[in-house]
Amino acid sequence: MDNDSKESSSGALESLSFPSNKWVKLNVGGKVYTTTLDTLVGREPDSMLARMFLQNGAMQPSEKDEQGAYLIDRSPRYFEPIINYLRHGQFICDDNISVKGVLAEARFFGIYSLVAHLEELLAQEDQPLDDRPLT
Amino acid sequence: MDNDSKESSSGALESLSFPSNKWVKLNVGGKVYTTTLDTLVGREPDSMLARMFLQNGAMQPSEKDEQGAYLIDRSPRYFEPIINYLRHGQFICDDNISVKGVLAEARFFGIYSLVAHLEELLAQEDQPLDDRPLT
Amino acid sequence: MDNDSKESSSGALESLSFPSNKWVKLNVGGKVYTTTLDTLVGREPDSMLARMFLQNGAMQPSEKDEQGAYLIDRSPRYFEPIINYLRHGQFICDDNISVKGVLAEARFFGIYSLVAHLEELLAQEDQPLDDRPLT
Amino acid sequence: MDNDSKESSSGALESLSFPSNKWVKLNVGGKVYTTTLDTLVGREPDSMLARMFLQNGAMQPSEKDEQGAYLIDRSPRYFEPIINYLRHGQFICDDNISVKGVLAEARFFGIYSLVAHLEELLAQEDQPLDDRPLT
Amino acid sequence: MDNDSKESSSGALESLSFPSNKWVKLNVGGKVYTTTLDTLVGREPDSMLARMFLQNGAMQPSEKDEQGAYLIDRSPRYFEPIINYLRHGQFICDDNISVKGVLAEARFFGIYSLVAHLEELLAQEDQPLDDRPLT
Repeated sequence: MDNDSKESSSGALESLSFPSNKWVKLNVGGKVYTTTLDTLVGREPDSMLARMFLQNGAMQPSEKDEQGAYLIDRSPRYFEPIINYLRHGQFICDDNISVKGVLAEARFFGIYSLVAHLEELLAQEDQPLDDRPLT
Repeated sequence: MDNDSKESSSGALESLSFPSNKWVKLNVGGKVYTTTLDTLVGREPDSMLARMFLQNGAMQPSEKDEQGAYLIDRSPRYFEPIINYLRHGQFICDDNISVKGVLAEARFFGIYSLVAHLEELLAQEDQPLDDRPLT
Repeated sequence: MDNDSKESSSGALESLSFPSNKWVKLNVGGKVYTTTLDTLVGREPDSMLARMFLQNGAMQPSEKDEQGAYLIDRSPRYFEPIINYLRHGQFICDDNISVKGVLAEARFFGIYSLVAHLEELLAQEDQPLDDRPLT
Repeated sequence: MDNDSKESSSGALESLSFPSNKWVKLNVGGKVYTTTLDTLVGREPDSMLARMFLQNGAMQPSEKDEQGAYLIDRSPRYFEPIINYLRHGQFICDDNISVKGVLAEARFFGIYSLVAHLEELLAQEDQPLDDRPLT
Repeated sequence: MDNDSKESSSGALESLSFPSNKWVKLNVGGKVYTTTLDTLVGREPDSMLARMFLQNGAMQPSEKDEQGAYLIDRSPRYFEPIINYLRHGQFICDDNISVKGVLAEARFFGIYSLVAHLEELLAQEDQPLDDRPLT
């Protein structure tokens, strides 16, 4: 009934607080994403998301909501290309989605390979990258 | 089980009725957004949203729905860029989203730094800003 | 626990079957919208929506679903600009949303100020207004 | 509590297995649509959807999910203009929605007046109507 | 109450672990799709999805979430045209959806007839098919 009880007793990734095939729910700004620990820590082990789930990391996982999803106070819309990037390593995004919006999230989550790629994309589009806060 | 019970006994922001890391659910027109009190009161302390959650403010928080989300009778679609703005201070919006729609919400919530920015954006687009009510 | 029990004993709007600050849920074609009675009856008191909720009106409110939302057999997508219009009196609509779709709903709900505005919009776009049923 | 118990004892449409004002939930590919039996059988009584709900029809309604919605293994996105068509008799569709997608569903559900209309639309757009299965 | 208990005692497709009319829920990245076993194994019996549900296949179905949906750690947005393709054999996709995104999913699920079709589509658009992971 509860996947959490199926933890393998020892794993190759000893620094993980969960077995690597564990399913994780993230509540990003009100929308729930389902993914695996592998996705969160595998591609970008130094990112903020990875460090939230690394046993010896400096960060604690955030609080959970009532259905057990970790709460993250960010935009669900622009998180979607981020989690897909962590799944398969490509940046893929529909035409009508703001690349600036994805960049803001990539920076927040500390996914620097993606940040660099998105900054390059925006530079090619010749958009002035004025993303300083208004206030 | 209930995050509300984890309140810190005393906080730096004494005027808050909740600890600043508290998670808050908003039911905007039927869609639930999850955010933190910090986001709601931090960037625009004079906004209507902030005043709803400030202890000594003139406003009471609105009623809650059955899952504990504060009810707000406004458009969820155009609230999304508003809450993102409160999270990170940038106005980011997909191409197909009506800027006029976001402006109407920014005015309702009294987020004046954003109102000024959006009015400027619309002026640049040379759109006649006819946003008087039809009736 | 139940907002319905918080009715004010007497109100300015005596013809209402509910206090005017009452929250109302509408299940439009499967999607639930949350709004207030004020929104439903305030701006267009002669509309079908208003008459559903006026005590002495000719109409009965429709049946409710299992979560207490009034059932309405119409398109949720095109209802969204309708309910926003009732909230603040402006017609605001994303570029990719069919104005004809909103017009069909405005007619159904009998919101004639909006019907007139939308017919004018479509006339300006020089679209032949062939909206007769196919069958 | 249960709308099903409110059936009228006799109706004009004797061939219906439900009273005509009955509310019906359809689970189309995972998304739940709420509509009435009138909508499903009224406009296109020979369609597959109508025959699923006609008492003396050759078809049985499909299985229901855990919330009582009839299961249909088709695309929810392209079903939306279909159900709106059954509600009011117009074909209305946002610009970014694939007309081919709606046509595939209209054919599946056997709504032939709409099939003819959509084929004509696509012919006008001069699109080669190559909609044979790839395999 | 539980459709699973309605299994037919023997079926034509003996290699299936479920009767072919069985309804299956898939939780793709947090969004639940409802479909049938026929759809999952019928059109592309060699795909990864099919093999997950074939009795003598090498793969085990993935874990289920709390509502009984099989968990798949992929993008729900780009899975939608995939499941529609398995339903009726056509590739149909709205204009604003990234074909590259669908291609990444078609490859992951091993649906090779669709992979070939999408690669051809992208080649026609003269887009450089640089879909190597960034890292």
